Amino acid sequence: MYKAKILVKRRKSILDPQGKASEQGAKLLGLNNISKVRIDKSIQFFIETSDEVLAKTEATEFCNKLLANPIMEDFEIILEKVNES
Amino acid sequence: MYKAKILVKRRKSILDPQGKASEQGAKLLGLNNISKVRIDKSIQFFIETSDEVLAKTEATEFCNKLLANPIMEDFEIILEKVNES
Repeated sequence: MYKAKILVKRRKSILDPQGKASEQGAKLLGLNNISKVRIDKSIQFFIETSDEVLAKTEATEFCNKLLANPIMEDFEIILEKVNES
Repeated sequence: MYKAKILVKRRKSILDPQGKASEQGAKLLGLNNISKVRIDKSIQFFIETSDEVLAKTEATEFCNKLLANPIMEDFEIILEKVNES
């Protein structure tokens, strides 16, 4: 079994409205030193296979087709072998 | 200046509907080995101060009051000193 950790980030050139809104919120709370807030997605899941190539293929397909928006986001995949539990 | 990396996670006991929906999506794509999908928030920002205690206080207040929902989410803060650029 593999554990996959994915980080889906908007490309730097693309505005992050959620981050921008939180930054304005910080100002309203009086936290004036906070800047450049970016909010990304961190995703975790398990892949029930012992074949690393298959695990990698499934994780990549999952990201490309569902988790990330290929027009404005990039993703990183980290696979880690774990014991069945 | 400090760079803050925050991970906001739902508590394990609380259902993650976004993760659940992605898991069902994976099944529909034929990715039958994928299970236990959890989607968390990964947040990055800068704190313009050279005082580590102040940086930590501002980051914690920002998380408590705005970034995390204290009823169902926990957060981790990692601070890293960076040079002004």
